[in-house]
Amino acid sequence: MYEYSHGGNAAFEPGKENTTDLSVNINPLGMPENVKEAVAREIANCSRYPDSLSRDLREKISVFEKTRPEYIFCGNGASDIIFRLPGAINAQKAIVTAPTFSDYERACASFGTKTIGHKLAATKSFDLDESIIETTRREKPDLVFICNPNNPTGRLTETGLIRKLLDLCRQTGACVAVDECFLDFTEQAAEYTSKRFIEHYPNLVIIKAFTKLFSLPGIRLGYAISSGSALIDSLYSHGADWPVSNLAQAAGSAALDGADSYIKKTVSYVSGERLIIEEKLKQLGYKVNGAAANYVFFQNPFPANLSKELDKKAIRIRSCGNYNGLDGSYCRAAVSTKENNGKFLAAISDVTERTMKR
Amino acid sequence: MYEYSHGGNAAFEPGKENTTDLSVNINPLGMPENVKEAVAREIANCSRYPDSLSRDLREKISVFEKTRPEYIFCGNGASDIIFRLPGAINAQKAIVTAPTFSDYERACASFGTKTIGHKLAATKSFDLDESIIETTRREKPDLVFICNPNNPTGRLTETGLIRKLLDLCRQTGACVAVDECFLDFTEQAAEYTSKRFIEHYPNLVIIKAFTKLFSLPGIRLGYAISSGSALIDSLYSHGADWPVSNLAQAAGSAALDGADSYIKKTVSYVSGERLIIEEKLKQLGYKVNGAAANYVFFQNPFPANLSKELDKKAIRIRSCGNYNGLDGSYCRAAVSTKENNGKFLAAISDVTERTMKR
Repeated sequence: MYEYSHGGNAAFEPGKENTTDLSVNINPLGMPENVKEAVAREIANCSRYPDSLSRDLREKISVFEKTRPEYIFCGNGASDIIFRLPGAINAQKAIVTAPTFSDYERACASFGTKTIGHKLAATKSFDLDESIIETTRREKPDLVFICNPNNPTGRLTETGLIRKLLDLCRQTGACVAVDECFLDFTEQAAEYTSKRFIEHYPNLVIIKAFTKLFSLPGIRLGYAISSGSALIDSLYSHGADWPVSNLAQAAGSAALDGADSYIKKTVSYVSGERLIIEEKLKQLGYKVNGAAANYVFFQNPFPANLSKELDKKAIRIRSCGNYNGLDGSYCRAAVSTKENNGKFLAAISDVTERTMKR
Repeated sequence: MYEYSHGGNAAFEPGKENTTDLSVNINPLGMPENVKEAVAREIANCSRYPDSLSRDLREKISVFEKTRPEYIFCGNGASDIIFRLPGAINAQKAIVTAPTFSDYERACASFGTKTIGHKLAATKSFDLDESIIETTRREKPDLVFICNPNNPTGRLTETGLIRKLLDLCRQTGACVAVDECFLDFTEQAAEYTSKRFIEHYPNLVIIKAFTKLFSLPGIRLGYAISSGSALIDSLYSHGADWPVSNLAQAAGSAALDGADSYIKKTVSYVSGERLIIEEKLKQLGYKVNGAAANYVFFQNPFPANLSKELDKKAIRIRSCGNYNGLDGSYCRAAVSTKENNGKFLAAISDVTERTMKR
């Protein structure tokens, strides 16, 4: 049977239904009530095919993102966009960082695009730096994936560096995909977003998701933003027709209605809790760089396997051993509700004192 | 802006909202009530990622289809499966009939698979015959798409011919995809399904959808059945992760609870209405071969453009001019509710007498 390398499976493992699952990063504020209501109302319309072009939803996203509706493609989750992209630009070679989200490499493999790993240095907190320009100049890829902030490290890349990459790639006809699925969880979103480049760089695609920010991963909704009209058209033709269900279109439209205050509340809550968790992890002896996202990323310096120890206490975190460029000493844990964060900190304090340090 | 070549868009065209849209083929009995209820209940669980392997749903489908859960892959509509397939088997060359559903060719193009058109003869009602064996032997494809009953003609292919094709393709390592999305609308489903070949031909993939049969196109749910375990695994890795939303998994499970009686009622209603419509079309002078599906397929012998004339009367049918192998004289119209069928027959009677025959 096929096995995905993602977190979030505790609910489907026999005997693990009651595990507190911090291996996926979903907004702990939960799905907005008006989203639930909008989805419920839309059920009656589901004997009709969805609008394959998500017209109303793209209109609303364009207002939210301060861009144009024709620059937007909506898909069955951000993952759908990532998987369409290599084929959409007929990519022969792509650069992906190591570590980063595994879907980029898997999407490239599915189309037959060769991937070049650009290693991020542990000594530099896995931050992306100028060496990506050198790698890109040397390798001449058709596609470069940048995750900002990066998953699982939570580290941000400055727009100055992204602009240099965009300039270089525009010369060579390459596409730069910037995945900002976690960016709206940070206070620095406005400063770090690549949206400012959309209009002038048709070789830029920004990937975003409703999934994490609005806590609706079970509904599946993501989108791409690009001023490259041939690229947007090609996203449509490189995957299933009617990619977004009526229910997801309704959910997305409703989510954007109250988005500004919901996001403000989210950012404030998440930043506060993240700092508390990071502080505690440091006190316990874990190495923490600081993540600008709704998760914490840290390294376990002790010989024992932390995620296994926590699993015994019904806490699931993401062991990062299956990320290229990381080993099992690196861990990621979601910033969740106060109750769940409390359970996590109590459990990790306990196992650290009793087991990890022995 | 991208343009899909499918029907079903009247609802999204300004001024056409009140058009009776018979250009898509959805079960006129409507979505079962328990499906609506199950989807509504599932909304509360959508802050959790879907089961990426659709475990419970595959279990239920396996009972319904009398096969094994591990033989099933669930996707974001049948279209998702069609688009994953060329990449999943790394197809270099595929055979598609002309006419047939346009997604096969578009899916092949998206992966870079070359398609060979196998022309079906108008003089033989566009029935698939032994010549497909010759074409397959000559062209040595990796993949052959058979739509049974065919869209848009509604014509069935006998299992004897499909078995010959499977035997030939097993020798050459080719995959045969049989799209049975419309088969359960016919009284002859048991006689014509290729399910009997699943266990012995791992090179067979059957494609089915909840969309049309259970009237839930707005929810997006389709599935593939194959005993080729490498093929099933490859379907997972050749497209978005979490392909099926929680809502679609819940809808599918609920739909199967009452499936047998719902399908029986559907088949009885659809066959009866289809014969009435086909009879009337013949009386009016249209050429009808008889379709084993929830739609009628016919040729307009008159010089005027039938779909344009009907559009003026707020009736949308599918003009088949954009199908390979057909011209604009061929039309497809869904078997819908008695009210809609009545409107269609009244409108076509009127335009035929007043306009078409002049």
